[in-house]
Amino acid sequence: MSEAKRLAGEKAIDYIEDGMIVGVGTGSTVAYFIDALGRIKDRIRGAVSSSQQSTQRLQMHGIEVLDLNATGPLSLYVDGADECDPHKRLIKGGGAALTREKIIAEASEKFVCIIDPAKRVDVLGRFPLPVEVIPMARSLVARQILAKTGGHPVWRDGVVTDNGNVVLDVHNLSITDPVAMEALLNQIPGVVSVGLFARRPADVVIVGGEPPLVL
Amino acid sequence: MSEAKRLAGEKAIDYIEDGMIVGVGTGSTVAYFIDALGRIKDRIRGAVSSSQQSTQRLQMHGIEVLDLNATGPLSLYVDGADECDPHKRLIKGGGAALTREKIIAEASEKFVCIIDPAKRVDVLGRFPLPVEVIPMARSLVARQILAKTGGHPVWRDGVVTDNGNVVLDVHNLSITDPVAMEALLNQIPGVVSVGLFARRPADVVIVGGEPPLVL
Repeated sequence: MSEAKRLAGEKAIDYIEDGMIVGVGTGSTVAYFIDALGRIKDRIRGAVSSSQQSTQRLQMHGIEVLDLNATGPLSLYVDGADECDPHKRLIKGGGAALTREKIIAEASEKFVCIIDPAKRVDVLGRFPLPVEVIPMARSLVARQILAKTGGHPVWRDGVVTDNGNVVLDVHNLSITDPVAMEALLNQIPGVVSVGLFARRPADVVIVGGEPPLVL
Repeated sequence: MSEAKRLAGEKAIDYIEDGMIVGVGTGSTVAYFIDALGRIKDRIRGAVSSSQQSTQRLQMHGIEVLDLNATGPLSLYVDGADECDPHKRLIKGGGAALTREKIIAEASEKFVCIIDPAKRVDVLGRFPLPVEVIPMARSLVARQILAKTGGHPVWRDGVVTDNGNVVLDVHNLSITDPVAMEALLNQIPGVVSVGLFARRPADVVIVGGEPPLVL
């Protein structure tokens, strides 16, 4: 599987244009992308990072990490996913970086998603849906998710996000209408962000393989 | 005006029942309520607080402050507002405590809002609408608010919320459909919460005066 991740991550380099500031996601597939980016670092102006983990790897390669408030909108965002459906809608957040990932995806013109073949599904929800929550609202949000979706929220105990919040992983969902589910969960007070990328899905999906498959 | 605030805050004591855990908001009117609560503190079990500021004042009176995750749903929440329309829909967040206030309001069966007469309006929006935002999304959210609402977002420079976030105050809005506006802004990635209490308005509004007016 790590070979498929490497092939997906390296293929995403095709989307780099000279002088770009590149939005960079988080995770094991993205790590291969960052390593490939390091090899062509003189072609780019810098990166906007979605996590402390990716920031460290970018800086290790000598790539400058910039503040999204200073850069303005980006041309390109490259990130992985935990699940991807045929409409390029995603579940993300297994690495707890969902909020910053969602912000950068929203700020970017093109979102290239890099995955291994195991991440492809017909219907989202086999992977538990991560929801980032203000700590004091943990129980309230869990009760409301259960009441409104029937899903079973499990507190990811011990995990604190880069924003100082907690994560609930919602099990037993079959998300046939991801746009509606995302909107519904966004209305619950205490929810910071929902790991569904449906209102703003990926634009391009690269499935790692020999050769990589570009959707 | 401080006399009207005091009269509103003291009137809210009528809603206290023996053995209650009371949800407590934030602000100058709420400070009078907390002082009145201190005088009957032996009747209540404790409080859930929406801010470090209110926590300090509660503890000064010897009232125990509890964690909402431990208490479960509350019977009563008492808080002020920056604006209140005839349908008891509110703008809140002038004190930057909007997210925790919204969480406690949602967790409470009855929300008693205490205001002075100057807070009553026919249409919400004269008071700039506070929106709490993840710091890295400040510019993105400001651009989207301008594009989607026509309102003019101003960064409340130097203010950091209890959750480590920033606040945008949106000027020049006339909010004729507060429920729709709240839902719209909640969908923007990077928005933590919106200072509109429309989907969950107040249940009772007490306007300070001699005698207080209960709506």
